[in-house]
Amino acid sequence: MKSPYKRQTATLKDIAEATGYSINTVSRALRDKSDISVKTRQKIKLTALDMKHVNNMIASSLRLGYTNTIAVILSDVSNPYFAIEMKEIEECARMRGYITFLINTNEDVDIEFEAIQASLNKNVDGIIICPSQQSDENIQYLKESGVPFVLIGRRFKQVETDYVVCNDELGGFQAVSYLLDNGHTDILTLAGPAYISSAQDRLSGYRRAFAERNLTVNEGLIWKIPVTTLGFDEILEDILNRKIKFSAIFAFSDMIALAVWNFLNRKGYKIGRDFSLVGFDNIQSRLKMPFQLSTIDSHMENLSNTAVDVLLKKIKGDQSTDQYITIVTDTTLIEGETVKKYVN
Amino acid sequence: MKSPYKRQTATLKDIAEATGYSINTVSRALRDKSDISVKTRQKIKLTALDMKHVNNMIASSLRLGYTNTIAVILSDVSNPYFAIEMKEIEECARMRGYITFLINTNEDVDIEFEAIQASLNKNVDGIIICPSQQSDENIQYLKESGVPFVLIGRRFKQVETDYVVCNDELGGFQAVSYLLDNGHTDILTLAGPAYISSAQDRLSGYRRAFAERNLTVNEGLIWKIPVTTLGFDEILEDILNRKIKFSAIFAFSDMIALAVWNFLNRKGYKIGRDFSLVGFDNIQSRLKMPFQLSTIDSHMENLSNTAVDVLLKKIKGDQSTDQYITIVTDTTLIEGETVKKYVN
Repeated sequence: MKSPYKRQTATLKDIAEATGYSINTVSRALRDKSDISVKTRQKIKLTALDMKHVNNMIASSLRLGYTNTIAVILSDVSNPYFAIEMKEIEECARMRGYITFLINTNEDVDIEFEAIQASLNKNVDGIIICPSQQSDENIQYLKESGVPFVLIGRRFKQVETDYVVCNDELGGFQAVSYLLDNGHTDILTLAGPAYISSAQDRLSGYRRAFAERNLTVNEGLIWKIPVTTLGFDEILEDILNRKIKFSAIFAFSDMIALAVWNFLNRKGYKIGRDFSLVGFDNIQSRLKMPFQLSTIDSHMENLSNTAVDVLLKKIKGDQSTDQYITIVTDTTLIEGETVKKYVN
Repeated sequence: MKSPYKRQTATLKDIAEATGYSINTVSRALRDKSDISVKTRQKIKLTALDMKHVNNMIASSLRLGYTNTIAVILSDVSNPYFAIEMKEIEECARMRGYITFLINTNEDVDIEFEAIQASLNKNVDGIIICPSQQSDENIQYLKESGVPFVLIGRRFKQVETDYVVCNDELGGFQAVSYLLDNGHTDILTLAGPAYISSAQDRLSGYRRAFAERNLTVNEGLIWKIPVTTLGFDEILEDILNRKIKFSAIFAFSDMIALAVWNFLNRKGYKIGRDFSLVGFDNIQSRLKMPFQLSTIDSHMENLSNTAVDVLLKKIKGDQSTDQYITIVTDTTLIEGETVKKYVN
């Protein structure tokens, strides 16, 4: 999906080509790094201005230097997973002297591109982003902009960036091993779309749990569903209508697990009796549920604080290095009330 | 609680006194309103700069005029009530050309003051705030700053401001009437602290429901608890230990209702059998629960959109009028699964 905004502004690469300097020199000149001579900096900045590089960005940086603002670009802050993440990022950034913009993308690449543009126009010092991942164009654009950024919760396997994610593969493995250990083998998984790295990795963990026990995965039990809960009842209705046999469910997120729980209740089934259920994220760490969901704790507070740490290192640090900071944090199984031993 | 930051910058009143103009004229001059002569504007701006009025604010406004940014200052975005509110505000503001800062206060007046300061320093065009209400000093300060702002969800009865709130009194009345209609008369209410207007108003609704039925309120069933769920189990433990007789609970918020539900489950009680329960907010409109909570819908989407509307009117409108915009929106009872007829 090509964004109509994409060609309005020049990239670092364009400026490098126009001036004859390297992308690295252009990036450093625009950030007023002292190892680039004042004359070179001026030349590059003027060219950037002529080429309308990221609108006001240069004008602002000429004027102000750092703005002590960061932007957080995420899917939907009304989803408790992102809400907890946002709370932690904002608080952590504030303690370190930054004020935080929030932009919701609803997993839409065009909104995401506009969010990046808006953030650059505001001359933010850096961006923390949970990318929609439907393509890598926006992230490539962000890389070219030269503004420090860190991915949180998702990563690109083909594009190098800084990122902080939890060990989604391990989490998937832990969830499914727990179900297998309780005698379930027909485990429906409501996985997210394959283009989302966390969905892909959790599914790999599902497969590894089966493989390590020499069990064959029933591919008919793998359902790739949207990460939002919109239109969710129809999908579950469809699964039930197909009379697919399963005794347990591994859901991509707690949000989806709760929607499953709600749906199956309405259908007269009881979670913990008729079906076992494991979610992902442990949003219960902040938001009490009537009953304790069995889930995987991704330790969101730690993830968020680490992302702020990495971003500030990038903002303050030497950007001439090509060293990316990539952090994968451990997950933990939370044994709640929604998994019961399978009795045939 | 006096903030140490308070006296660092001059207020509109200080500048009015120093220049001999009215507060209104000072405010309009600083916002470059054309009905103030250029000469007067310059004089006032220079005085403001001399007096360090709100740090960079003047410098920024001289330079940029509007920034197309707003700030949202609220208690805790990891609480789903605020998360939904924030999502709606951000989206609505963005559609209208604004980018949004978020600052969490954790209901702390000092953090709230710093949040206001930080927003003013960033030269935001306006602020939407859910005030902590432990005192009105911060709101008085905000009024003196001359920056347009709107309260959301809470209002001050002694300080005139623009505000958008739901009809908390009506909501409290609806919730308690529903319980009374189902035969409950021993209704424990977990009300928020009295300094929070919504807590006060919901409690008034509780009292009106009893009064309209010529029933006497048992004051021993009114518990004023913090609006966060921290230390919540201890409070409920205390209530149970006192062997207070009640068959139903009206909770200040869905967050508190969920915490009650979780607690009573752990104690071996069943909501809908041993106790009836009504919450407030209808966060289930966005976040599925395993079971449907009986609650009051405060129509958060509408509240948020209305708050943005009012703020933009204030930003764009004529601020010489002393007309405050105050909007109180209706609430609706949601009959969930957590209220059962009382059988003695």
